[in-house]
Amino acid sequence: MLARSAEAALPMEALSALLAPASVAVIGASGDAARIGGRPIAAMLARGFQGRILPVNPNRPTVQGLPAFASIADLPEVPDVAIIAVPANVAEVTMTELAERGVKAAIMFSAGFAEMGDAGAAAEARMLETARRSGMRLLGPNCLGLFNARTNFFGTFTSSLERGYPTPGPIGIASQSGAYGMHLFGMAREHGIGISCCVTTGNEADLNVGDMIGWMAQDPGTEVIAAYSEGIRDSRSFLAALELARRNRKPVVMMKVGRSAVGSAAARSHTASIAGDDAVTDAVLAEFGVVRARTTEELLDIARLATKRIYPVGNTLGVLTISGGAGVLTSDAAEAVGLPMPAMPEAAQAELRAVLPFCAPQNPVDCTAQALNDLSLVGRFATALVEQGGYSSILAFFTHTGGAASVAPRLRQELGAVRAAHPDRLFVLSILANPDQIRTFEEEGFAVFEDPSRGVAALHAMGRFGEAFAAPAPAAPPEVPAVALPERTPSEAEAKRLLAQAGIEAAPECACATAEEAVAAAQGFGFPVVMKILSPDILHKSEIGGVLLNVADAQGVREGFALLKQRAAEAAPQARIEGVLVAKQLSGGVECILGVHRDPVFGPVAMFGLGGIFVEVLKDVAFRRCPFGEDVAETMIRSIRGAPLLLGARGRPPADIKALARMLSRLSVFAHQAGPSLAGIDLNPVFAMPEGQGAFAADAVIDIAEDDA
Amino acid sequence: MLARSAEAALPMEALSALLAPASVAVIGASGDAARIGGRPIAAMLARGFQGRILPVNPNRPTVQGLPAFASIADLPEVPDVAIIAVPANVAEVTMTELAERGVKAAIMFSAGFAEMGDAGAAAEARMLETARRSGMRLLGPNCLGLFNARTNFFGTFTSSLERGYPTPGPIGIASQSGAYGMHLFGMAREHGIGISCCVTTGNEADLNVGDMIGWMAQDPGTEVIAAYSEGIRDSRSFLAALELARRNRKPVVMMKVGRSAVGSAAARSHTASIAGDDAVTDAVLAEFGVVRARTTEELLDIARLATKRIYPVGNTLGVLTISGGAGVLTSDAAEAVGLPMPAMPEAAQAELRAVLPFCAPQNPVDCTAQALNDLSLVGRFATALVEQGGYSSILAFFTHTGGAASVAPRLRQELGAVRAAHPDRLFVLSILANPDQIRTFEEEGFAVFEDPSRGVAALHAMGRFGEAFAAPAPAAPPEVPAVALPERTPSEAEAKRLLAQAGIEAAPECACATAEEAVAAAQGFGFPVVMKILSPDILHKSEIGGVLLNVADAQGVREGFALLKQRAAEAAPQARIEGVLVAKQLSGGVECILGVHRDPVFGPVAMFGLGGIFVEVLKDVAFRRCPFGEDVAETMIRSIRGAPLLLGARGRPPADIKALARMLSRLSVFAHQAGPSLAGIDLNPVFAMPEGQGAFAADAVIDIAEDDA
Repeated sequence: MLARSAEAALPMEALSALLAPASVAVIGASGDAARIGGRPIAAMLARGFQGRILPVNPNRPTVQGLPAFASIADLPEVPDVAIIAVPANVAEVTMTELAERGVKAAIMFSAGFAEMGDAGAAAEARMLETARRSGMRLLGPNCLGLFNARTNFFGTFTSSLERGYPTPGPIGIASQSGAYGMHLFGMAREHGIGISCCVTTGNEADLNVGDMIGWMAQDPGTEVIAAYSEGIRDSRSFLAALELARRNRKPVVMMKVGRSAVGSAAARSHTASIAGDDAVTDAVLAEFGVVRARTTEELLDIARLATKRIYPVGNTLGVLTISGGAGVLTSDAAEAVGLPMPAMPEAAQAELRAVLPFCAPQNPVDCTAQALNDLSLVGRFATALVEQGGYSSILAFFTHTGGAASVAPRLRQELGAVRAAHPDRLFVLSILANPDQIRTFEEEGFAVFEDPSRGVAALHAMGRFGEAFAAPAPAAPPEVPAVALPERTPSEAEAKRLLAQAGIEAAPECACATAEEAVAAAQGFGFPVVMKILSPDILHKSEIGGVLLNVADAQGVREGFALLKQRAAEAAPQARIEGVLVAKQLSGGVECILGVHRDPVFGPVAMFGLGGIFVEVLKDVAFRRCPFGEDVAETMIRSIRGAPLLLGARGRPPADIKALARMLSRLSVFAHQAGPSLAGIDLNPVFAMPEGQGAFAADAVIDIAEDDA
Repeated sequence: MLARSAEAALPMEALSALLAPASVAVIGASGDAARIGGRPIAAMLARGFQGRILPVNPNRPTVQGLPAFASIADLPEVPDVAIIAVPANVAEVTMTELAERGVKAAIMFSAGFAEMGDAGAAAEARMLETARRSGMRLLGPNCLGLFNARTNFFGTFTSSLERGYPTPGPIGIASQSGAYGMHLFGMAREHGIGISCCVTTGNEADLNVGDMIGWMAQDPGTEVIAAYSEGIRDSRSFLAALELARRNRKPVVMMKVGRSAVGSAAARSHTASIAGDDAVTDAVLAEFGVVRARTTEELLDIARLATKRIYPVGNTLGVLTISGGAGVLTSDAAEAVGLPMPAMPEAAQAELRAVLPFCAPQNPVDCTAQALNDLSLVGRFATALVEQGGYSSILAFFTHTGGAASVAPRLRQELGAVRAAHPDRLFVLSILANPDQIRTFEEEGFAVFEDPSRGVAALHAMGRFGEAFAAPAPAAPPEVPAVALPERTPSEAEAKRLLAQAGIEAAPECACATAEEAVAAAQGFGFPVVMKILSPDILHKSEIGGVLLNVADAQGVREGFALLKQRAAEAAPQARIEGVLVAKQLSGGVECILGVHRDPVFGPVAMFGLGGIFVEVLKDVAFRRCPFGEDVAETMIRSIRGAPLLLGARGRPPADIKALARMLSRLSVFAHQAGPSLAGIDLNPVFAMPEGQGAFAADAVIDIAEDDA
């Protein structure tokens, strides 16, 4: 299955020339350290890049003190990577010359290609073709480039470096947007957060954010991946990279923008991106345990805490506080994100009360400001939280007292001893302190968050990574016979016949050419029945009044037959009418919708929801890429807000969730096997009958993309 | 009406002795500046408090260099305020002595009262009684006290002052929790945010957070109020304060914790608070335009931006960016909070394209990094956003380039000129810069937010304040005849009769003592009918099978009559049976629920929702304090997520919203006039018929609190 084929990621060596080169040529090298062609050289000289820097400039013998070469042909060796800092009109010939020399990778700063319209897109396509032919990989064009903080390779012209160089560290940044990627790096630098490498991909003619995540997932120096994208261009490299990161236990925290209507429009106008449907993106990221950040701060908070490499399974939060108010606030924050805060065991509570009578030991555990008079109590309480409460995440709120000179050293010692004895637990401190004090706490292994709510959100994310890393492989999708789709959208009866081959059951029904056949069929099923016009040319029958419900007797069937034919003749005089479909009217079931649509990025995506207003007004639906097994299908069904209706709310009998999951899973395999001519499927309504009585589609539409067929 | 009676707030002078005293006695004064009785004196001496400090200490002639007095009786003058820093066991006698001297206000640090159980609560009640008798006001006990940064009055022992004193400024802090209030002050100080005063109210024996908000709403030195509470104790002072703040155009941003189940439990254990129902709190805060913050950072972000005193009506956001990615991200953030980003006018877009061909001028307006080569373009674009786009809020994203030495001065000049020419607009900058550069931008009138998402959330809050300040007074609630409630919960028929007096209509119905009366009634209404057991002792009829729907003919009515009596006799043999209620079965309406419950803090609160699963599974309901007019009722109805069902979704006819609003408003007045013996009302279901056809209650329960009657 695609979802599990991490092998589709590029092997690390394929990009080493780009990300960790031993030699770099700079085409358009400038002696002015402030110019685009001068900045990379200045940065590498300033930081002591250990590889060889080969400036190319036809007019100068030296550039920034380095010997320069008049042309690419004059280069004394074939560099691993070339930085292209020349105007757009000479970029293409530069690419050709680099290809001729057999350069392995290029970073193109030059802009003026696909982002500028058709002529630019054509030039970009030609450059890609040049690169493909010679086996050269291309980053950009129209990108800010990349840096590798460990080797001091600065293949970027970002002015962000004027404000400081990166501190090497375990977080890799992969960003489509140059300005945003460097903004992220800049915020990390201001907050003392270490970066392994930062790559911006720009127009993504060749390499994309997925490729970069894939490289970082293999890079031993990167432990946590922070990514930003406006639109996924190639689902294959992206999904393979996420799977590889999960296998290697490297958390990915991602900002995928373009959620909003305005945002999507901006994303399209800004690059040639395809901003996929946001709910589908949510589903795909959740599938791989990627945590989606909503703000830049949240992205950095999560990445920073993730560098502790503690990813709990069954994450729970224990809160130690000297302020009851902060305890309440933290509980609210935990409930808002869904991080459980079970109570301390009764025995542990009694012991803590014996030590400190006016404490509130439930959880949040309020040791009150009294504990500041005897800081050994803080160690005692923290030990109880870890050992008796068993929480995987601990948040300790000590506000400014945690930063007070009279308190901080002993507090650090008391809490530090507990942390050292329990290296498998996450410890977050919420204190107000000066940067030096914060650094001392951080060196002791604590993550410090001034605002406890931010600490809670980051702790919650660690549990989500833990669940994803520990999740067993989902069940294999069921074996479903391959079905050959017709070339055109089939009639309802034909659609149901095709689906039945895949084991997807419809309500008992019969296609009837005459009124008397319809009466006989209805008498066979028992009344009431449903009657629908049967025509391959009428897809949305109810819109023309082509569906009759609750037909109660033989006379009703006869009248209905005539009425349906009349309505069809009026509304769609050209339609081929094959007769009327008579079906048993199901009752006592819960009305659901099962569907599939083709996402432009991720291919067929299945949807599950309850019928009617739940989908149309409340958008209460779950999505998942096809195909998947019954376990995944059941999780989808249980995940919607209206799920209690299926589980027996308001005195109803529980619905046959197993049958529904079987149908949904089979539908996903059917859609996956159907190929690109399948535009969509709607099973609406599906009746989920009481437990043990099955689930039946009462209507089915298979929509064929006839242009593609 | 209560909601509009700002007069209920304490006049400012009533608390001036507490908040802006000319003289302060410190009972339990200590020569050790680190002790609780020494800290206030040390702080006032360090900062130069202009009033008189009168230490009381029986053992020393001087305290921290000031002449000390042996007892309260020995004080040479009656101080405005006394700080009580003595153990709990002498606090009570101290209060008595202060009362005897006629001291106007006391701040009690001492703990060990209501928060410690019944004996403590009794002592607290006695102290309150002492204060009340002498007209003394009491802050605390068990509080961290307060400070007034303008007069350097430090009536607090917070150790937060060790890390620095407050910068005077326009934000007032009112917090029930001492530790949290001082944490908030500490964060404000670290970020250079100025504070007028900070008050923590602890056990709130007398004065509460509402009183403090009320004082700040009148204080000319406070322009913005940041509040924190775990539970509102006195709705009268709280609501009056909020109304006063709104009238005086002072924004209130509040953290009201105890949202979560765990949080509520913690709030109760920590103080003697009543944590009201969270949805009711939401509704009350929204009613007064108070913005509820979810995190401490958000609280400070909003308070800080609010000090600009620009509160737009019809707030819209225009984004100027040099990064397309940041533009998309900002659009997503704006959509998430609900801040509209209309597009620039076509003509303005064309003009900007003429100036800079590759810009994206829609909104977000991406002037691209090219504008950095000619910064006059930034001014040009910003002017277009303000003058042609007409946005009230402008967010400009310039990341680290905004902080670059080569860019910052000219950028400040260009944007500063636009800001100066349009002082009615809000300008937020998202830049990365060092603190000095940020200060220069802020001195120019810009608010700087590193993370653009935080800037968007704060800008959105300014519009919410603006709407609240500009909102016309709501319509007066309708005149409804006063109804005398019975002493016990009435039967359904009696409940409907009482409600009918208030103009609340039920479906046509008839109480029938015999089966033949029931048949006659049904034939009068026309079939089908609904039949219900009629008994003052059976409140929830459907639970015992006491309701029959869709009774289709006379024979059905006769059988139903017997069946209902039999079920009632089996399920509730002691119940008095008055017969059977026969009602016309309504069809074609939308099922709704209208209800009232008595909130322990805010009194009767009305609820509106759609029937069935909308309330029970999805919790899709709106609340509002009673009473209110039809305008408010209609806003409630339109605010629920399922509202499209009433407005004509899925081909339904629009429902009679006006009739529904009339009923809801009348119900609110009925409940308001009914007094405390009314425990609740349920109208469930109410059928909202198609437009012009009214709304009818099909069932009604009036629940009388018999203990209180």
